[in-house]
Amino acid sequence: MPGNFQIMTPKLPRLAGRSYGPGSFLFLGKTKYMDYFRKSVALHKKKRGKIEMKSKVTLKSKGDLALAYTPGVAEVCREINSDPKMSWQLTNRANQVAVISDGTAILGLGDLGPEAAMPVMEGKAVIFKEFANIDAIPLCIASKETEEIISFCKMIAPSFGGINLEDISAPRCFEILERLEKELSIPVFHDDQDGTAIITLAALINACRVTGKVLNKSRVVVNGAGAAGAAIAHLLLKQGVDDLIVVDSIGIVYAGRPGLNKSKKMMAKESNKNKMKGGLAEALVGSDVFVGVSKADLLTEDMVRSMNAAPIIFAMANPNPEIMPEAAFRAGASIVGTGRSDLPNQINNALVFPGLFRGLLDSGIKHVTLEMKQSVAMAIAYSIKPSKNKLLPLVTDRKVVKVIRNTLIKNKEKYV
Amino acid sequence: MPGNFQIMTPKLPRLAGRSYGPGSFLFLGKTKYMDYFRKSVALHKKKRGKIEMKSKVTLKSKGDLALAYTPGVAEVCREINSDPKMSWQLTNRANQVAVISDGTAILGLGDLGPEAAMPVMEGKAVIFKEFANIDAIPLCIASKETEEIISFCKMIAPSFGGINLEDISAPRCFEILERLEKELSIPVFHDDQDGTAIITLAALINACRVTGKVLNKSRVVVNGAGAAGAAIAHLLLKQGVDDLIVVDSIGIVYAGRPGLNKSKKMMAKESNKNKMKGGLAEALVGSDVFVGVSKADLLTEDMVRSMNAAPIIFAMANPNPEIMPEAAFRAGASIVGTGRSDLPNQINNALVFPGLFRGLLDSGIKHVTLEMKQSVAMAIAYSIKPSKNKLLPLVTDRKVVKVIRNTLIKNKEKYV
Repeated sequence: MPGNFQIMTPKLPRLAGRSYGPGSFLFLGKTKYMDYFRKSVALHKKKRGKIEMKSKVTLKSKGDLALAYTPGVAEVCREINSDPKMSWQLTNRANQVAVISDGTAILGLGDLGPEAAMPVMEGKAVIFKEFANIDAIPLCIASKETEEIISFCKMIAPSFGGINLEDISAPRCFEILERLEKELSIPVFHDDQDGTAIITLAALINACRVTGKVLNKSRVVVNGAGAAGAAIAHLLLKQGVDDLIVVDSIGIVYAGRPGLNKSKKMMAKESNKNKMKGGLAEALVGSDVFVGVSKADLLTEDMVRSMNAAPIIFAMANPNPEIMPEAAFRAGASIVGTGRSDLPNQINNALVFPGLFRGLLDSGIKHVTLEMKQSVAMAIAYSIKPSKNKLLPLVTDRKVVKVIRNTLIKNKEKYV
Repeated sequence: MPGNFQIMTPKLPRLAGRSYGPGSFLFLGKTKYMDYFRKSVALHKKKRGKIEMKSKVTLKSKGDLALAYTPGVAEVCREINSDPKMSWQLTNRANQVAVISDGTAILGLGDLGPEAAMPVMEGKAVIFKEFANIDAIPLCIASKETEEIISFCKMIAPSFGGINLEDISAPRCFEILERLEKELSIPVFHDDQDGTAIITLAALINACRVTGKVLNKSRVVVNGAGAAGAAIAHLLLKQGVDDLIVVDSIGIVYAGRPGLNKSKKMMAKESNKNKMKGGLAEALVGSDVFVGVSKADLLTEDMVRSMNAAPIIFAMANPNPEIMPEAAFRAGASIVGTGRSDLPNQINNALVFPGLFRGLLDSGIKHVTLEMKQSVAMAIAYSIKPSKNKLLPLVTDRKVVKVIRNTLIKNKEKYV
């Protein structure tokens, strides 16, 4: 999008015949990446995708057909027609989530188109099923028009218990989410905004528990003002972080900076209480926390040294972080998290969305509020005893789904 | 829809507290219907719908995640981005069909709304999976606007190998199908039009084999000019039936009759070569075949007696036919078919759509043509040796899927 800060750089190595960005092979090394890539393509080719439909009823006889289909099903239709709420009991709706993407912000690779978005959305469906037993349907759509996407989601709502928006680029994603939250009576969640904000807050709460820092007395710099950066900033403000600076590809976001979109205007108004101008380097001087959802290698050791003592560094650019953990520690960081699964302290929203939707579906909560995001972040954080090298539960830890679900159910009255 | 002939009357018995139409309990009797209804509601309540998502990959370790999801999946996305056709190999698309309904013509019960359409669409998904191993996704949508439905289907096309439109009322369904066939590069099939026409033609071919009648020398009266009636008339004309009369709720369709919609204007032009006027009774005098896709009890014994000797009677109104088989035989019918599963000669499009989509997906054919429908009808007909009480294979006969699929694959070059 014009004027949009591009988060998560596409610097992934490619298989033969493709170009490789500089700095692509940090940590994992070319061989390991190439190995994942080659094996993943082979797996997808062999399986022809990752999901399939399964019937919950048998269909062996004419009698089976008469119950699952006509004539018996007619009465089920009429029950729902008499009371549309019965669709939550008589169809799979109460366990069914639409995973909707326009393919414009795929894994930080940018706009790859709806066909190419499908493997990621099928992957999310697999995670939904495996971790939360939710039936997620990937729907990759051939339109980038805000109004068309909103209209699409509204048309499809009667078939689903919730909508998970995915990899839709900023700033369109802000209006799409805001409008759907207002206009639909099923929960809508944009993983790149809500999921990332929740897991970042959870990690930050635990980093403070480990280091003894007090979040509300810390200066936090968020580098990146796309979907993730904006949502993180918003949630941190709600959490009481009043010394917050947001930086995008142009520099510090401040009120009156030319060319700000609606989302950034709001951020400018609510953050940067000292009305700072300048770049990332200026923002970081004297700060306590760096949260990066931007590009590889943007944070230097000198910048880390300019921060307050023993800063917290979350370098979450994918696949290569804003600074390497070794370098951050060398420059004095007390704790480092990244988006990478092969390093300690992976900060990944796959910890959030399965449990969150399980909780939404089971509680009947219809809207995801800021308070709810705070409670969920707190619940994830306090589900473990954190340490310097274990800020969060592992992505494969199935307990987290229950923790999140129970938080929503316990606090149901507050949110319904 | 205003001016639309309402096919298939909603005269089904209801459970306690609901009204029952007259004549609801023919054949099966109230007890058996009520039993199906009660059991079907209980089944749906117990299972909470009939479908679920299933993963084709395991997700036990971080390594599994790295292949099914990030970072490995990034390469799969890029493969498809480089060549969108690869989505047919690397995602489930090649086995995935959208079953789309606006809920306006549910089982002849009329406009019940999208929520109430879901049990039928889930039922179709179950049939698709059970008989043809196709993954069908039910999408019931909250719009009745022709342009919005067209736009919805076009947006969703990248995620699917084909689109099965279902229970969308006439005359909107004609334009929706026509436009989508022109504007999409995946096959689009409207079961209520295409499926019903194919299975009717197959039954008619076999009725002629049994009775010795020659279809192209017969006068055929089609009673009903909605989705099914129009498509049947169109296919019979293509098949060479040149003495065809279409009757709707107002009477015989003829050129110049006031208030005809676009579809009926075309029918008026192509049928009724003797320019007859009048009602069903007038149309039937001296005719050989009655095809009813209308309402219960519209065909009387006297009307059957006015037809040529030993006529063929297809009384397909659901759930109660235009005439009871006993009555038709009493009046001289040589062969009788209905839509009912509890009577001989059920003429049901569930025999068509699983095999047709299996064939479309496996052959890569992108458009369903009239020639294709003729070939498929012929293949279904000749898959059995018909008799007076077995015009068609049973709905539960799994061989039919293969027969249809092989017909499409064999004739692939003609259709691609």
